[in-house]
Formats: sequence, structure tokens, C-alpha cells
Amino acid sequence: MSDELRVTVWNEYRHEHNSPTVRAVYPEGIHSTIADGLRSYGYQVRTATLDQPEHGLPADILDATDVLIWWGHMAHDQVDDAIVERVHQRVLGGMGLIVLHSGHFSKIFKRLMGTTCDLKWREGNDHERLWVIAPGHPIADGLGETIEIEHEEMYGEHFDIPAPETLVFISWFNGGEVFRSGCCYTRGAGKIFYFRPGHESYPTYYHPDVQRVMANAVRWAAPVAGPSRIFGNRQPLEQG
Amino acid sequence: MSDELRVTVWNEYRHEHNSPTVRAVYPEGIHSTIADGLRSYGYQVRTATLDQPEHGLPADILDATDVLIWWGHMAHDQVDDAIVERVHQRVLGGMGLIVLHSGHFSKIFKRLMGTTCDLKWREGNDHERLWVIAPGHPIADGLGETIEIEHEEMYGEHFDIPAPETLVFISWFNGGEVFRSGCCYTRGAGKIFYFRPGHESYPTYYHPDVQRVMANAVRWAAPVAGPSRIFGNRQPLEQG
Amino acid sequence: MSDELRVTVWNEYRHEHNSPTVRAVYPEGIHSTIADGLRSYGYQVRTATLDQPEHGLPADILDATDVLIWWGHMAHDQVDDAIVERVHQRVLGGMGLIVLHSGHFSKIFKRLMGTTCDLKWREGNDHERLWVIAPGHPIADGLGETIEIEHEEMYGEHFDIPAPETLVFISWFNGGEVFRSGCCYTRGAGKIFYFRPGHESYPTYYHPDVQRVMANAVRWAAPVAGPSRIFGNRQPLEQG
Amino acid sequence: MSDELRVTVWNEYRHEHNSPTVRAVYPEGIHSTIADGLRSYGYQVRTATLDQPEHGLPADILDATDVLIWWGHMAHDQVDDAIVERVHQRVLGGMGLIVLHSGHFSKIFKRLMGTTCDLKWREGNDHERLWVIAPGHPIADGLGETIEIEHEEMYGEHFDIPAPETLVFISWFNGGEVFRSGCCYTRGAGKIFYFRPGHESYPTYYHPDVQRVMANAVRWAAPVAGPSRIFGNRQPLEQG
Repeated sequence: MSDELRVTVWNEYRHEHNSPTVRAVYPEGIHSTIADGLRSYGYQVRTATLDQPEHGLPADILDATDVLIWWGHMAHDQVDDAIVERVHQRVLGGMGLIVLHSGHFSKIFKRLMGTTCDLKWREGNDHERLWVIAPGHPIADGLGETIEIEHEEMYGEHFDIPAPETLVFISWFNGGEVFRSGCCYTRGAGKIFYFRPGHESYPTYYHPDVQRVMANAVRWAAPVAGPSRIFGNRQPLEQG
Repeated sequence: MSDELRVTVWNEYRHEHNSPTVRAVYPEGIHSTIADGLRSYGYQVRTATLDQPEHGLPADILDATDVLIWWGHMAHDQVDDAIVERVHQRVLGGMGLIVLHSGHFSKIFKRLMGTTCDLKWREGNDHERLWVIAPGHPIADGLGETIEIEHEEMYGEHFDIPAPETLVFISWFNGGEVFRSGCCYTRGAGKIFYFRPGHESYPTYYHPDVQRVMANAVRWAAPVAGPSRIFGNRQPLEQG
Repeated sequence: MSDELRVTVWNEYRHEHNSPTVRAVYPEGIHSTIADGLRSYGYQVRTATLDQPEHGLPADILDATDVLIWWGHMAHDQVDDAIVERVHQRVLGGMGLIVLHSGHFSKIFKRLMGTTCDLKWREGNDHERLWVIAPGHPIADGLGETIEIEHEEMYGEHFDIPAPETLVFISWFNGGEVFRSGCCYTRGAGKIFYFRPGHESYPTYYHPDVQRVMANAVRWAAPVAGPSRIFGNRQPLEQG
Repeated sequence: MSDELRVTVWNEYRHEHNSPTVRAVYPEGIHSTIADGLRSYGYQVRTATLDQPEHGLPADILDATDVLIWWGHMAHDQVDDAIVERVHQRVLGGMGLIVLHSGHFSKIFKRLMGTTCDLKWREGNDHERLWVIAPGHPIADGLGETIEIEHEEMYGEHFDIPAPETLVFISWFNGGEVFRSGCCYTRGAGKIFYFRPGHESYPTYYHPDVQRVMANAVRWAAPVAGPSRIFGNRQPLEQG
């Protein structure tokens, strides 16, 4: 089934233009690297970016998207509220959503969480070790006990999110912090996974384990053909 | 400690003016009946309503509020976004919030939940029986196995909310529906309790068990003097 | 993938011998009917019963079992503690477990839950309506809003279980009760699903929706190739 | 209310006899130090130890216990199964239970959790930093962002427990590990808190923050006068 899943990778795509450092790491953009990783797992992957019309997310693209991946950082406030609303409705309707790294401050993630989604951070070449806390969870498939990322930006608690329904990873940073770095949620009929790693100036999205987590998360977050969600004024049901 | 807790009961206070039926049940307004019930438990209680300046919720009132209770229905969209934002920030900062009945569609509840908060309903004189699912929870203190409400509006699943952190009550309706009718959440440092009963045309808020649940919920939702939530750029910590 | 999953359906298989009523409903045993339903979904299914050597669950059978389904009622105490221990270890190691109906009182379920697993009950031809509470969950795939079972034994709250990690179904009974009737848990690397319906004297396991739930639950509970769970005395890790 | 809560501190009390090192740290036993800390918060505290008749936990003592605190390590298997059963029933009936440090392997904790409760460990003078993850939780009352323990035994993931209902603390260790070190559960009507720190050879239980956590946990885990839990064969209820 996985080869039929349709993934759209959304990237703000600004750092790559503004920063030679970032461009050196992701010459085709973060979205391209993520997309390549997912294609190697057999998914149908397309990309979309902020500066495209409707941010690359018109209704027909979302109609053809099972799981949306979101990377943004410096231009969260340039994402149009109408597009945020559109994505929000899709998630509640069943589309999966994977929010990466600095996407914690995206409008869509804050809207879905209901909190500030704020956190501590440090750009300082920390070593990050993600411990798998939920070894039987589908997102941990194929992993070892830890994911080692030699150079990353630190994110630390307190992370202002609702308690995850399932906590898959906890990160350890050598500077002294911990972080809930793999967080599963359900909102409406949709599944959401927040995954911490991926600062724009480090080659994190080339890391095989990081690619594997995203591929696993796509499968986990894929829509389910569950019951229609029916609301409003209703007559009593027949009782057998 | 309970007698020191400061509660503000907010009511839209429109049905009582528009409908002789509702006025006959709650001649001083729903807020007055709820407030009287809470005072009998020793809390310091004030009330606030939609048509007061700043909806009765200026900053100094919220400064003096440990737990806010919210009843609204027909005028949700008349609640000013700036006041919603103010209440949102207070909840994240630790103020308790108890959302009653049709308050499921209030701006503040939808913002905190991140979902539509939609549901099924029927005005038809259903019998509601709330089963206590979490008998060891503080909100169940002093209750029997069920709360019986002879005449109530029906609310039925699917209720579009995040899965509660603790589900205290499930309602049974004789028309054939069930409903998650007592739902606990944490958002930021604040605790939120959604409690289903309380249609404006029934004397539900005079029911001793309903009053007891609200009194228990106030104590449960009271702020805790926990750590400040510190965010932003941070240097590494000393490591002992 | 589903056609490769290996399921073992365990049945106490006593009622079918002792009661003409039950035998009339399940002439080949409850396990055979459940197995037939699962085979129609493409799984590799075998059965095992209490009176077989090692209750039909020797190590090599469990080695070849991805998901174990458990139906028991009148002979829970005749299940050998060594077999319970064996199944317990397998579940913690990743084998899925689906516990049906009166299996709530089985040794294995009580051991995994840590509670009495007691409940209310009534053999009285109740109408049961299971409401889907988690419409985006894989176990709800292909279902409508409710599952209607015209004649069933009633189980009512309080059900003495840990709060489910995900609550998929809540049952409504026309006699006035509710029940958490589809409950997901993780223990160790294993997933557990408790599913309420299935009294021995009613044809519940021929019901297409009930079969579908069991088939969905098998896929949900299937083992994941996650990290080995490593315990004991450990040296410090290299830090990058 | 807190001054009326009755706490029993149970200690295995063997290390203190066998090891001059431990005796130097806890000359009157770990239980005495814990008890002194709790008395400073106004609780009524008594102690009980393994070598007393019925391990110091006869029925009348448990009758007079609101919250039981458990420290054990080298003699878990000498705790009589009948006493474990007795404590188990009390917890399900509403008595609070706080399990400390190496108590993770006690019979009572394993019975309540349903898992092995195994973990990684290292006696190596690690620095432990407990981060408060749930700043609005009553157990975090009065704490700062972290609790710093300069010398402690390391416990590391994977910790084989059910996912906590609320995760209050995550520990960071300078050797590279993380640990879910403050875990809340409900079983039956009882509340359970597992708290990691407290190796016998370090003065952890003299730490003011550690004492505060135990005092807060006592209040959180105190019994609630909720509904009786009624099980068994039941007639249909009147329907209003």
C-alpha cells in the first residue's frame, strides 16, 4: 500500500535563497532532499513552496495529498490565513500532517495545538541523541535504540504543546537539555506527527534514520476510510 | 484552601432576556444560579456577562480570577477577539477554565482545542444519565455512580474534540446516543474542564450533583505555583 | 502486507460442548467462526483451544503468531500459569493481542492491565449500539458511525481497567448503560485491543462489522520491527 | 487538609544494615529521612519495614493510610505475596501509592503496571537534571524549571512501563541518557506516582526539591470520596 500514498512536501524555501551556508547543504531546497528520501520508500511525492500561487497548495493538490509535510521558519507570518484554514479543514477531514523542526511555530501547528508551541533553543552545534521511548510504535520501525545527530540546533523544554497522545522520541542534548522530539496527535480524523530534527544549516535530512522516521510517519499518518463525521440536529435512532 | 479560590462565572445572558421560558427557569440569569451554587462551597464568586464593558473581563478581573466558568450559546461570534486572546493567554498561564454545555462552540474553547468542537444535538426532552468513568478523580468526589437528569437536550457523538487527557463522565441518552460529557485537558499551565449538561430551558444548574461537579472542577482546575515557563535562546547549563 | 500476517485464534471451547444453545450458534466453535471471518481478509489463521496440549500454544506456535486472539469465559482458572507467563512475555516482546468479550476476566488480560477488570453485566437481550469515537483510527476503517447488534449481553461501567490509550468505541445499551467497548493499549513492544461484543449465545461473530473490527485490529496490533529493548548495567555513551 | 493526610513510608531497610556507606548517609534508615521530610509538610507519617510482622503493613495500618510510599531494592522477592495482594487491593480501592527509585522492580509496582518495569542503570556518579515537563501539575507546585542532583545513579530508557497518564519529569544524565522520571497513573480508584531519584548511597532524600515532590505527590495521590465501584449482575435502570 505504501507505494500508493501521495505525499506533498511543503517548504518555505527562503533560507536556501538567502544563505550560502544553507544553499551549500540543500542546493535544491530542503523540500527536494526530503522528497528524495521519501521517494526511496516508494511514495508518490510532490513539493510545494511559499512563493508559488496559493503557496503551492490549491484545493486540487490537497485533494491529491494523503500526507502533508511542513517545513517553515522565517516566514511563518507570510502564510495566508485562508491557506491555513484550508489545510486545517483537510487535517480534520483525515489528511495526515508531519510538522518538522521550526515548523513548531507555523500557523497551522499552533492552530491545531491551541498553545503557543514555544520552546528553548540554541544554535551551538549540540550533539542530539533521540531515544526511542515507544519501541513498538510504527514510527520506530527499523530503528535502533537511538538516532545520533552529531551537529544540530538545540531545542529544550519547556515545549508548550498539549501532552502528546504518544511520545515516540525524547532528545538528549549534550548542553544539558531534553526535548519531546517525536509527538503524535489526532485532531478530527487526521493524524499529526511533530518531529524535531532539521535545522537548515545541518545535513540532517540526509540522515538515513531521519529519512526512515519521516517515511514511517507518512504511513502512520495516512488517512483511514473511517465513518463520516456527522454533526447537527438528529432524530432519535431506532432501537433494534 | 477552597474558600480562598476566586471564581468568575461568565454568561452570555441573552436567552434570559429573549425567552420567557428561560427567564422562568433562571430569572436572575444562568450565571447567578451557577454562582449561588459555587458560593455554597465557600468560593469567592463574581459574575461577568457579554454586554458589560470588555464583556466583564478586563485585565484586573482576570488578575483576580483563579478559575473562569463559561456559558454561551447564541452570541459566540459577538465575543471580541481581543478578549478571547486575553483569556487564552491567561489559561496558558495557569488560570483554570470550565466550559459548560453550548460553550463547546465558544471561540475560546475552539481555540484551545484546535478542532471544530461540533457534535450532534436534539431538543427533545431526553433523559440523560452521566456515568462516572473515573471514580478516583477529584471531580467525582462525593458523587454516586451516575448523575440523573430527567430532562435535557441531547448531545451525541461524534464530538470533534481532541481525546481528553482524562474522561470523567460518559452520558447515556434514552434516544440512543452516548457523549463524552466530562473532559479534562491541560493547555500550557492551565487546566480545562468541559462539562456537558446545562441547556438554558431546563433547571439543570439547580441540580445538587451538577453543582457539586462544578465545585469539584473549580478545585481541580485551580492554578498551581509551578515553575515559570521560560522560552527562547539559552546558553548551556552548568553540569554539576 | 495483511495477507502475510499470521493470526492464532484461541478459544476456551467449553460452552460449545456443554450447551446446545451455544452449539446451535457456533457448531464448529467460536474460534472457527472468528477464524473464517479473518481468513476472508487474507490473513493466515490457525486456531488453538484450552484442552489441547499446552492449550494449543507451544512456543513454536507463538513463534509463528503475529497476533493472538483470545476468547474465554467459564474456565479462566484452568489456564496454566506457565502458559499465561509465556503469552505475557510474547506480548511484551511485540506480539499483538486481541481480547474479546468475557476474556476481560482472563488471566492474561488481568496481568497486562494490573486491575481487576471487573464490570457490570446482564444477560437480557439488550440492544447494543457501538459508537465510533475515534473515526480516524485504523480500527474504524470501513465502518459507519455505529455498529448495531440487536441482541447482546450487556456490559456496563464501571469497567475496572486503566484508561485506554485510545478509546475507539463506546457502547450504548437500551437498558441504560454505557461501556468503553473498544480499548487500545501498549505494553512493552506489544499492542493490545479489548473488544467487548461476543456473548456465546448470540451470533455476534458472524456480524460483518464485528468481523471487520477484528480484521482491522489484527493489522493495527501487528508487530513492528522496532529497536531491541536493552536493559541492565550500561557504560556511558560516546557523545559525538 | 494536608495536615490530616496519613502517610505510611515503607522501606526494605536492608542496605542500611549491610553497608557502612549507606548507614553513613541514612543512619536511621531511608524511611526516617523521607518521613521527616513529609512531617515538615504537616502530614501524619508513620513508617513500616520489611522485617516487621506482616512487613509492618497489617490491615489496620493500611486502614489508616491515605498514601503509601515504597522504597525497596535488594529484597523485593522477600515481600510476601499475600501482602502484595493486600496492598494491590487497597490501591485499587483508592489508597495512593508513591514508588521510589529501585522500587520500580517491586512486586507491587510490576503487578500494577503489567510490564517488566526493567530499565538501564549505571552506578557512576552521574549528574541528574530533572526537567519539569508539566508545569501546571500539582506535583510541580513550588518547583523551578529543573531539579539538580549532583550525584546519582543513572536510570536510562528504555523503561518498560505503560505510557504514563501524565509525565511530570524527564531526567537528563550527563552520561548521555534520558529517563521518564516522574510518572502518574490511575489504577482502579487509586493514584500511583513513580519518582526516580533516590539511590541508597547518595543523600537524595535530604534534597529540598525531592522532599517537595514527595509532599506534593502525597496530596495529589490522596483518596477521593468518589462513587463506590459496583460490579456484577444488574437489572436495567429506571429511565426517568
